[in-house]
Amino acid sequence: MINKTVKKDSLNRLKKIEGQVRGIMKMVEDEQYCINIINQITAAEKALSGVARIVMKRHVESCVSDAIVKGQGQMKIDELINSVFKIANRK
Amino acid sequence: MINKTVKKDSLNRLKKIEGQVRGIMKMVEDEQYCINIINQITAAEKALSGVARIVMKRHVESCVSDAIVKGQGQMKIDELINSVFKIANRK
Amino acid sequence: MINKTVKKDSLNRLKKIEGQVRGIMKMVEDEQYCINIINQITAAEKALSGVARIVMKRHVESCVSDAIVKGQGQMKIDELINSVFKIANRK
Amino acid sequence: MINKTVKKDSLNRLKKIEGQVRGIMKMVEDEQYCINIINQITAAEKALSGVARIVMKRHVESCVSDAIVKGQGQMKIDELINSVFKIANRK
Repeated sequence: MINKTVKKDSLNRLKKIEGQVRGIMKMVEDEQYCINIINQITAAEKALSGVARIVMKRHVESCVSDAIVKGQGQMKIDELINSVFKIANRK
Repeated sequence: MINKTVKKDSLNRLKKIEGQVRGIMKMVEDEQYCINIINQITAAEKALSGVARIVMKRHVESCVSDAIVKGQGQMKIDELINSVFKIANRK
Repeated sequence: MINKTVKKDSLNRLKKIEGQVRGIMKMVEDEQYCINIINQITAAEKALSGVARIVMKRHVESCVSDAIVKGQGQMKIDELINSVFKIANRK
Repeated sequence: MINKTVKKDSLNRLKKIEGQVRGIMKMVEDEQYCINIINQITAAEKALSGVARIVMKRHVESCVSDAIVKGQGQMKIDELINSVFKIANRK
């Protein structure tokens, strides 16, 4: 489960991402240059990927580790790997 | 340049993505299950990729096409391909 | 560490990918339609991602799990998460 | 259509990728460390993405540009954008 540090860090990052999305809306409203808009979208995607990263790290350190120690890791591992390749392939 | 249709469609999508990001913040605040948070992040990334897609399509139909017709397409093509592989590799 | 099942499955998949790469070379030599070549490249990338998936699953089931049970999981977890986001971002 | 330069460059790169895939097979046969195998797979994926890049650049410079100049660009543009986001999302 998410702890205090990851919670704070994630919320700060997501707050910033919310601002980035609003910034992109402003760019679209102002009819700015398409490539600049696309680059900002890519930046927001990368920032979201950063949040996924810290949440996943914490998940492996807590839930997955706890399950493994109890000898009940398989389901958590399957779920983790599914999630990893969902991110990797943006399916 | 972005036209009326793409502008409206992009803004609708971005409005929804803003809501998705706020939803993820709520999930983090409520300390929901990590994998569920990560799946929502992946969904938001995919939605952003959808906006990049319609903006890029419009860009090729307008700016890139105009430059090509004028015999001045090379710089626009280089810029487009750079942008495509920035998205592909999330660099 | 890789076990017999993952070894056999990976080698079968890699053998097929080797054939896919040779097929792409043939397409290039025959100057086939660019989009068809690109689609075959994307298919080969996806097949490689499938190998990464089964190797990573096995890695978490063996090395990472063993380290966690011994109370020495942190380094393995950090390494795993780095590898996951290298794949995700193709950095 | 692919020209001489892109053909030569692509074939050189694909030859090297074929070697990378064989190298990964050797790593699997030798039961090397999983993370090292995964990193080599990511490297091969990145190299494939480099081939897609030069083929796509040439495609836009030739087929797509020709169609646009003839006022028949729409189908080529749709096809291009589909291909771009197939790569981006590895669907």
